[in-house]
Amino acid sequence: MRYLATVSYNGTNYCGWQKQPQGLSVQMVIEDVLSGIINQRTGIYASGRTDAGVHAIGQTFHFDSKEIADLSRFTYSLNLLLPSDIKIVSIKAVPASFDARKSVTKKEYRYFLVPRAKDPFIKNIVTLYAYPFDIKIINEILHKLQGFHNFKGFTSKKTDLFHFKRTINLVEFSEGEYFGATGFCFRFIGDGFMRYQIRMMVGTILAIASGKASAAYLDQLLMSDNKEVTRYNADPNGLYLWEVSYD
Amino acid sequence: MRYLATVSYNGTNYCGWQKQPQGLSVQMVIEDVLSGIINQRTGIYASGRTDAGVHAIGQTFHFDSKEIADLSRFTYSLNLLLPSDIKIVSIKAVPASFDARKSVTKKEYRYFLVPRAKDPFIKNIVTLYAYPFDIKIINEILHKLQGFHNFKGFTSKKTDLFHFKRTINLVEFSEGEYFGATGFCFRFIGDGFMRYQIRMMVGTILAIASGKASAAYLDQLLMSDNKEVTRYNADPNGLYLWEVSYD
Repeated sequence: MRYLATVSYNGTNYCGWQKQPQGLSVQMVIEDVLSGIINQRTGIYASGRTDAGVHAIGQTFHFDSKEIADLSRFTYSLNLLLPSDIKIVSIKAVPASFDARKSVTKKEYRYFLVPRAKDPFIKNIVTLYAYPFDIKIINEILHKLQGFHNFKGFTSKKTDLFHFKRTINLVEFSEGEYFGATGFCFRFIGDGFMRYQIRMMVGTILAIASGKASAAYLDQLLMSDNKEVTRYNADPNGLYLWEVSYD
Repeated sequence: MRYLATVSYNGTNYCGWQKQPQGLSVQMVIEDVLSGIINQRTGIYASGRTDAGVHAIGQTFHFDSKEIADLSRFTYSLNLLLPSDIKIVSIKAVPASFDARKSVTKKEYRYFLVPRAKDPFIKNIVTLYAYPFDIKIINEILHKLQGFHNFKGFTSKKTDLFHFKRTINLVEFSEGEYFGATGFCFRFIGDGFMRYQIRMMVGTILAIASGKASAAYLDQLLMSDNKEVTRYNADPNGLYLWEVSYD
């Protein structure tokens, strides 16, 4: 039987989702606990990776197992055995053809920004950004990024991808309360995002809106024959993989 | 010149306030940075200790230094050099006779409780408590604890104290939002609290209000000839040294 799980995690103490030769990954921890509980070595397959320090509210993964009689009880037991910074939100049965990565239709990321120089309590779960910025410029840039573009300027040069065109369906910048602190939230919904893409977009947006980079820099990065990668990469700790959608 | 500093810290990654042969203490980290910036080895003297994992919003300490010309700039520099989980809130000059511990008139502690089994993001900065409890019983017990009592049943047996009578001026239990989560807050204001006292009081209150211990257990602990120490000690991560008052 194939199952789809939704998981929330605090990425602070992990080297990211993906198993690595060194370092503790979220994937490894879940695989170990899951394999123990179903008494059979089982791989888990996520919707995509998240990098070190990046969080998830609704990451998804699929795994195969003999039939699980009581999914709610199974989820409860998994959560007891998993560390306190990883929480399984739900598990449901899916068809054998379902693939947590290939079946994705949309992904949403959110990025939380709190305008403080220092905050001992929420420093790992939001990005603290003390420089003044122009909200009007942020909204203008977000408007430019929306739609179908070549985002090669917003991903690592070390990539085995050939196609860098992606569609961003929704961009939004709003003020709100994040973990009790007044701040700002970037929302991005799209058909897929490349490695570092959200952080590089947010980093570049903030650089321009704070007067550290020019508006022309963005236009240059978005040109389809662009060979340059942005110099700005926002910190991982404000980034959340928020929701993964399937048909 | 003598100075009084107010400091906020996240106690998660420290062995407590007090310097220890092993482990990283808040005191050691601040002493090292402060001694570096004023270019002279300087001790710091707090209002009292906090234990491993306990946080502070308004811990205070005094230190001696040659005159500091610009206190606001000095505070800014200290914060740049201190780690991200320690933040100096303010520094002011005080008379040479002032002592951050001996001059204390009142101390306030708060304890945050969130009724969830698991929360990857705020697990270190509140106490997650998933058992149902009776708010009426909590308020009744708090009412009993208020005033002048022998609190020997609510501190470590390993103590060099001879007197265990203390006054708790204010007790309060209220519902609110803590780091964006709906939960509860215990407030205690008193002339002084002993080691583990707040955590042992909160632990005992919750045990009784959840039906794990009887109401008579509290009465027994409060008897002045009591030789027993409570079996219940609430987790450190929900506890905050909130404010230290001086005349």
